[in-house]
Amino acid sequence: MATKKLWGGRFQEQAAAWVDAFGASISFDQLMAEEDIEGSLAHVKMLQKTGIVPVDDCDQIIAGLEGIQQDLEKGQIKFDVENEDIHMNIESILTDRIGPVAGKLHTARSRNDQVATDFHLYLKKRLPKVIDEITTVQKTLIDLAEKNVETIMPGYTHLQHAQPISYGHYLMAYYQMFKRDKERFAFNEVHTDISPLGAAALAGTTFPIDRQMTAKTLGFSKVYANSLDAVSDRDFALEFLSNSSILMMHLSRFCEELSMWVSHEFQYLELSDAYTTGSSIMPQKKNPDMAELIRGKSGRVYGHLMGLLATMKSLPLAYNKDLQEDKEGVFDTVKTLLPALKVFNGMLSTITVKADNMKQATENDFSNATELADYLATKGVPFREAHGIVGQLVLKGIQTHQNLQDMSLAELQAASPKIEADVYHDLKSEVAVERRHSEGGTGFDQVRKQIEQAKRDLSESGDKSD
Amino acid sequence: MATKKLWGGRFQEQAAAWVDAFGASISFDQLMAEEDIEGSLAHVKMLQKTGIVPVDDCDQIIAGLEGIQQDLEKGQIKFDVENEDIHMNIESILTDRIGPVAGKLHTARSRNDQVATDFHLYLKKRLPKVIDEITTVQKTLIDLAEKNVETIMPGYTHLQHAQPISYGHYLMAYYQMFKRDKERFAFNEVHTDISPLGAAALAGTTFPIDRQMTAKTLGFSKVYANSLDAVSDRDFALEFLSNSSILMMHLSRFCEELSMWVSHEFQYLELSDAYTTGSSIMPQKKNPDMAELIRGKSGRVYGHLMGLLATMKSLPLAYNKDLQEDKEGVFDTVKTLLPALKVFNGMLSTITVKADNMKQATENDFSNATELADYLATKGVPFREAHGIVGQLVLKGIQTHQNLQDMSLAELQAASPKIEADVYHDLKSEVAVERRHSEGGTGFDQVRKQIEQAKRDLSESGDKSD
Amino acid sequence: MATKKLWGGRFQEQAAAWVDAFGASISFDQLMAEEDIEGSLAHVKMLQKTGIVPVDDCDQIIAGLEGIQQDLEKGQIKFDVENEDIHMNIESILTDRIGPVAGKLHTARSRNDQVATDFHLYLKKRLPKVIDEITTVQKTLIDLAEKNVETIMPGYTHLQHAQPISYGHYLMAYYQMFKRDKERFAFNEVHTDISPLGAAALAGTTFPIDRQMTAKTLGFSKVYANSLDAVSDRDFALEFLSNSSILMMHLSRFCEELSMWVSHEFQYLELSDAYTTGSSIMPQKKNPDMAELIRGKSGRVYGHLMGLLATMKSLPLAYNKDLQEDKEGVFDTVKTLLPALKVFNGMLSTITVKADNMKQATENDFSNATELADYLATKGVPFREAHGIVGQLVLKGIQTHQNLQDMSLAELQAASPKIEADVYHDLKSEVAVERRHSEGGTGFDQVRKQIEQAKRDLSESGDKSD
Amino acid sequence: MATKKLWGGRFQEQAAAWVDAFGASISFDQLMAEEDIEGSLAHVKMLQKTGIVPVDDCDQIIAGLEGIQQDLEKGQIKFDVENEDIHMNIESILTDRIGPVAGKLHTARSRNDQVATDFHLYLKKRLPKVIDEITTVQKTLIDLAEKNVETIMPGYTHLQHAQPISYGHYLMAYYQMFKRDKERFAFNEVHTDISPLGAAALAGTTFPIDRQMTAKTLGFSKVYANSLDAVSDRDFALEFLSNSSILMMHLSRFCEELSMWVSHEFQYLELSDAYTTGSSIMPQKKNPDMAELIRGKSGRVYGHLMGLLATMKSLPLAYNKDLQEDKEGVFDTVKTLLPALKVFNGMLSTITVKADNMKQATENDFSNATELADYLATKGVPFREAHGIVGQLVLKGIQTHQNLQDMSLAELQAASPKIEADVYHDLKSEVAVERRHSEGGTGFDQVRKQIEQAKRDLSESGDKSD
Repeated sequence: MATKKLWGGRFQEQAAAWVDAFGASISFDQLMAEEDIEGSLAHVKMLQKTGIVPVDDCDQIIAGLEGIQQDLEKGQIKFDVENEDIHMNIESILTDRIGPVAGKLHTARSRNDQVATDFHLYLKKRLPKVIDEITTVQKTLIDLAEKNVETIMPGYTHLQHAQPISYGHYLMAYYQMFKRDKERFAFNEVHTDISPLGAAALAGTTFPIDRQMTAKTLGFSKVYANSLDAVSDRDFALEFLSNSSILMMHLSRFCEELSMWVSHEFQYLELSDAYTTGSSIMPQKKNPDMAELIRGKSGRVYGHLMGLLATMKSLPLAYNKDLQEDKEGVFDTVKTLLPALKVFNGMLSTITVKADNMKQATENDFSNATELADYLATKGVPFREAHGIVGQLVLKGIQTHQNLQDMSLAELQAASPKIEADVYHDLKSEVAVERRHSEGGTGFDQVRKQIEQAKRDLSESGDKSD
Repeated sequence: MATKKLWGGRFQEQAAAWVDAFGASISFDQLMAEEDIEGSLAHVKMLQKTGIVPVDDCDQIIAGLEGIQQDLEKGQIKFDVENEDIHMNIESILTDRIGPVAGKLHTARSRNDQVATDFHLYLKKRLPKVIDEITTVQKTLIDLAEKNVETIMPGYTHLQHAQPISYGHYLMAYYQMFKRDKERFAFNEVHTDISPLGAAALAGTTFPIDRQMTAKTLGFSKVYANSLDAVSDRDFALEFLSNSSILMMHLSRFCEELSMWVSHEFQYLELSDAYTTGSSIMPQKKNPDMAELIRGKSGRVYGHLMGLLATMKSLPLAYNKDLQEDKEGVFDTVKTLLPALKVFNGMLSTITVKADNMKQATENDFSNATELADYLATKGVPFREAHGIVGQLVLKGIQTHQNLQDMSLAELQAASPKIEADVYHDLKSEVAVERRHSEGGTGFDQVRKQIEQAKRDLSESGDKSD
Repeated sequence: MATKKLWGGRFQEQAAAWVDAFGASISFDQLMAEEDIEGSLAHVKMLQKTGIVPVDDCDQIIAGLEGIQQDLEKGQIKFDVENEDIHMNIESILTDRIGPVAGKLHTARSRNDQVATDFHLYLKKRLPKVIDEITTVQKTLIDLAEKNVETIMPGYTHLQHAQPISYGHYLMAYYQMFKRDKERFAFNEVHTDISPLGAAALAGTTFPIDRQMTAKTLGFSKVYANSLDAVSDRDFALEFLSNSSILMMHLSRFCEELSMWVSHEFQYLELSDAYTTGSSIMPQKKNPDMAELIRGKSGRVYGHLMGLLATMKSLPLAYNKDLQEDKEGVFDTVKTLLPALKVFNGMLSTITVKADNMKQATENDFSNATELADYLATKGVPFREAHGIVGQLVLKGIQTHQNLQDMSLAELQAASPKIEADVYHDLKSEVAVERRHSEGGTGFDQVRKQIEQAKRDLSESGDKSD
Repeated sequence: MATKKLWGGRFQEQAAAWVDAFGASISFDQLMAEEDIEGSLAHVKMLQKTGIVPVDDCDQIIAGLEGIQQDLEKGQIKFDVENEDIHMNIESILTDRIGPVAGKLHTARSRNDQVATDFHLYLKKRLPKVIDEITTVQKTLIDLAEKNVETIMPGYTHLQHAQPISYGHYLMAYYQMFKRDKERFAFNEVHTDISPLGAAALAGTTFPIDRQMTAKTLGFSKVYANSLDAVSDRDFALEFLSNSSILMMHLSRFCEELSMWVSHEFQYLELSDAYTTGSSIMPQKKNPDMAELIRGKSGRVYGHLMGLLATMKSLPLAYNKDLQEDKEGVFDTVKTLLPALKVFNGMLSTITVKADNMKQATENDFSNATELADYLATKGVPFREAHGIVGQLVLKGIQTHQNLQDMSLAELQAASPKIEADVYHDLKSEVAVERRHSEGGTGFDQVRKQIEQAKRDLSESGDKSD
């Protein structure tokens, strides 16, 4: 039989233990134990300062909480499912240690604003960590890009060879995606960095509390302007799940390509043994497991986003127990993102680039067809017509097993008399890449510009991960 | 530093422990330890019977596995993240106990068919439990319906009083939803009850294995017809998540209504103290937490469905590491459904029905307007015209604060001369309910028929939960 | 200004046209015009037979509806947003044609059961079409598999060469997936083939209707047992969206592999020009657009599933306007599935298999490593030890650029003295495939068995698509 | 048979019309016709200025495009499914009008950067409209709040009376949610307001284009820094769908409460007839259809988000046909949000507040229990103990059918001798509200402060919707 609940004054019957267990959140919200104590400390110091609770009582409570804080760090605190959640567990431990005066801690506060405060604090601490891990990945991308500005590979659209590109250019495309990811997480901080403390149950309180003081103590930049909103709002969590979904989508794209590029058919890259695994049955296997797992984990994060959106749908104000479901998805997402980024970075920084294979792949295909069409367009043939001429040449090449650069000038001129001997220069893949000087293009100069700009961006952002 | 992997022959470098930890599944797939050992026992017995592995070697392996099985039940087995997953953990423990002969267990098998077998077995055991818990809820609904055939309440559409109904009829609507849920989970068994064992890595094996024998030993009705499909298929898991999502949706609808019906405004129902909780700040509160939490948990299950669908999208055959992400969502769904159904049942079976409040709510509204329109239609007024006449009377009633039954005959006849004194009989809510004899309608006779049929259904299904 | 609504008796103000337009469903529910008229015809014939509405009135209504039906087929019916939905539109047209007697059609009926009836009828007609299109795809798979039983290709796990397999075996894996898809859609019919007609608004009716008669007229096997459930249930639509999501997932997997296999790097398959497109800029491009589009459309269908699950969450009984959102996702899914399957089938049936490239890919890799490990295991080496020996040989082979079959017997024996000259036979990829006689394995005999069974399955199912 | 495609040089077979139709996007991307022409105009002016295409040719193209633009506005342009998409349609019409010189327009451009440019432009134009509609709603909320600062109603948690609040305070909670929505859409503009034009197929171009010029002409603040990223990125669309999902979630919460508050049981609000509808069968019904439909449409938007996330998952760079699926969900979301907000605003601005009913609901309950607990806490009783005392009094009150304010002083003092006669003042609901002076609380002064701040916010934001 469950013990009498702290809120149980008006209750005559008690729930069975298995019912309590279903409703309890302590199994997961203990992850916010640190934040819960911080929040309580800020609250009690404010109660003391404002005179709502006598100085001596507050001193006892502060000492008690600090003792719990220290024991928590040492791993010496045991939580109990009968006390439902992290808030009641901490208060109960405090009561055991300092007696009934502990009961004054909850003056002018409710679990509704308390849990919201804890959750805000939790995420506020993790967002910079996520951003830092992304920065680390970006640096690895820049390093790798810098070494591979002149590494030529086929650029793909529809997984078909499209036009030759610089591998460094490819890497910098992901740099850009991660840049946006960081901007999103930074924006996410805006709606996370707001203190709900003092909203009490939903309506504020008649006690003369000082919300600015608690916010400041906890490092929040501002306070919620409306108490109902303060306890009902989970936008910051949805933003986090949405941002994380987009980040995981980016990672899934890179990992998808990686898994192809380390395949027997591509052989563009090779992974370090340390980021692959073998097979229990096939002795030759070297599987890009980490890349696949990161790709697969995108589903998990999408699911958390969809789950919380569904849970929040149609919820009346202010707090409802449904909101207890807000946390596990966010916790699991943090637990997914941080190591996924770290593993991704390790994998990337130990990769072997097989530049010769990449280059060779651009020399036995028709990925220089655009060069020929552009060549003709430059000579005044309307592009659409030039496209048609080259299309016919490609068709002939397929039938005769010749690439464009292998055709004789006579053959080329039969298709268009505008073609002259200088065309062979343009048909080289390295020339095709080098000449793409358009802003943001794959030309070596442009890739180098991107890299320089990226380095400036990272150094300006006072990047903390160094 | 990680120890040498069982699959590590061709590898020169090893992963860092934190990389291993990211890739490892032992933290969650240990939930299938029992199934893993069962699968291995079936496999080794087959290896023995077919002569693939010598009898004595197999005897040693069997004894070793049975020992582990017993220790597992006693909670004396420790798993190790360095051994990645449940399969490698069990094999490693077996090797520690019986030496290198343990290495013969994995003959003609791969982790790919092994994990698929474990997962099928896991779900095959849980599906009947889910069905049983639903049956228990259905019985409680029938009991409650039986007591409330003649309990009159407002039927709602658009959350507006529509027509009076029997509360028993309302309860039996949910009985029907749960009936379909059970049919879906029973259908789910069809695609779960298939043995992948013997598909090996993806292609079958050259060893003369007997898949029918292992399937039979494990209680499977049949074997996968195609080995590639056997290791790649997760349809059974998606079916489970989809069926669970629909079930949770049904529960969310009931819980939503419950939360309204126990509110101050409705007061149709009262929950037992044992299924409600209090507030840390507001001493009067008696919150229908369990109902809200069940409602909220629908989001979680939806998320698992969406997560696995996303993960499976575009996966090439056969096994990819992404598939490791298939399990946690299913495990968590099982962990959600079973207690949710149990708590729901407990809540329902201890509910207090405030029949007077329900009835009263049908007497101070216009929910008998359809009766009047039907009355006129019966007298030959085209229904659409009758509807218009009654609409005008309702408007007048709102303005004069009279319900239809409060208007004088003269007033009613002013709207239509076809109205006679017998109309007042039809306007009574109990009459409106009682007279709905149409098949499946809310008429008392019809509700009783539904209840009788439901009882027959449950008794015919040889219902295991008694 | 909007015209007076058919239901507008009690209303004093009218909605602005733009508000009406927001609420109206006629823009999409006109897709069910045919079903709506069928439903009304069945209803009025029942009203006639039961004497609820006089014979002559019913004759007029029937003639009117049949006239509308004919004009609809000729494309001569115009719908009007002011009449909100398909039901009110048809009734309004009927009234224009036959006068106020049209108003008797809605006796003993509500739009709530009417729309549910329409929607059930709509899906009931489409499910067999979906199943038929899948059957057509299955036949194409069987044909192609039959021609490619002995086409050897690398089997993949983790997109790495795993073991050689038969291409026919690969194709038959998809046959199996589609078999389950059909079983799911067939099961879907069970919960679709139920008539809600006669449930009226939510509670049934006092008129002596005959629901069995209308159900029979409309081809439904049975009627909903509970009127509240009849108007609130959308399980059949959710089942359809879930089944469709799984089907699209299967298609996305095939299309993903297809897009790789037609790439420059793989060149295992070539698509007919008729199922590819070119580029506006790159003249050489031949893009597998149809495959990509089918793959991409999986997201759309997933979205419809998630959307309806979210919409249904927490909806109180019985009908709420939210339910109007049930249809567009289902309609769009039908509009997606049928052509996607048809295009998929066309693409598949015109594919060119480059068997030489496939075979060659199995001869310059280590995908025969399992053969060597199995060879050793057969000679009594514990499999785990054999795995380690072969792993070392693979490592050596990578360093010396030799495949296993290229190593001298002396080299092989240095790794294990158990290896003898007959090993070279086992290392051939065609032998590796041929010898996999295990049930459901890739051995030619097993693939042929699968094909024969598949043909029997399709002929037994009295397959309608021939 | 389809006509020869503009990109068809190398193709020998053509697709059947129904295959073309499956692949074509013109049915929906014609919504971007205006943007497509704008993009082409900017492009050709740049080609002219940079001398890539001769001045005269460009003049012809410009004149041709402007002619199409004008005809488009007049509704005189017909699109053709054989021309696949909006880009090929416009180019084809241009060719019909000005001949082969039209073929020069596509110089240094690809459909890949063209469609990305159109889509960015499309959304860039709609984001301010969404923000404006939200601002309009916010103003209505402020107006209504201002009139209802002193309207007392029960504040709810768990749908149970919690503490009395100001209805104005409740309304301002939604003001805050919409404020965050606007901030998110404004942030969304950052990643939308970037020009992809000039990225060409994926790699940039060898022509000396001026991307800054086209960006400026089109009103973009900057250009994509990386051409691969420019054609592959759909983050801006995902941000929009995510932001829209959160907005719809907020609306669903309000609409949920609205649907309860207009119910027979609550009667806190009444909707204008113009925002409700009737029933086809029940003449008395006045359904809050618009509120329900807005609530239901949250599912649709969630689905679009999930759909695009799934589609983008694991897509290799750069463009793939899957990306064609990016648009319909976004278009439909725009088509959902704008009228939903407008209807919501209309509904809100014509609402009747039944202040007496709201107030009365606070006087026959125990929502003043916190006041008593706080009263005791102020007198030095530890809050936890005070809570217990009041809980006992509530229990007694329920049993004796008395509210706290109805109990005699003696009865109250029996529970705690600290209670004195002044307690009755605190127990009044208006006092409970008025005294909540804590920052952001429901005290009248605080609500007024929120309103003043909100007005300042809106006027400072240079709000365009006036």
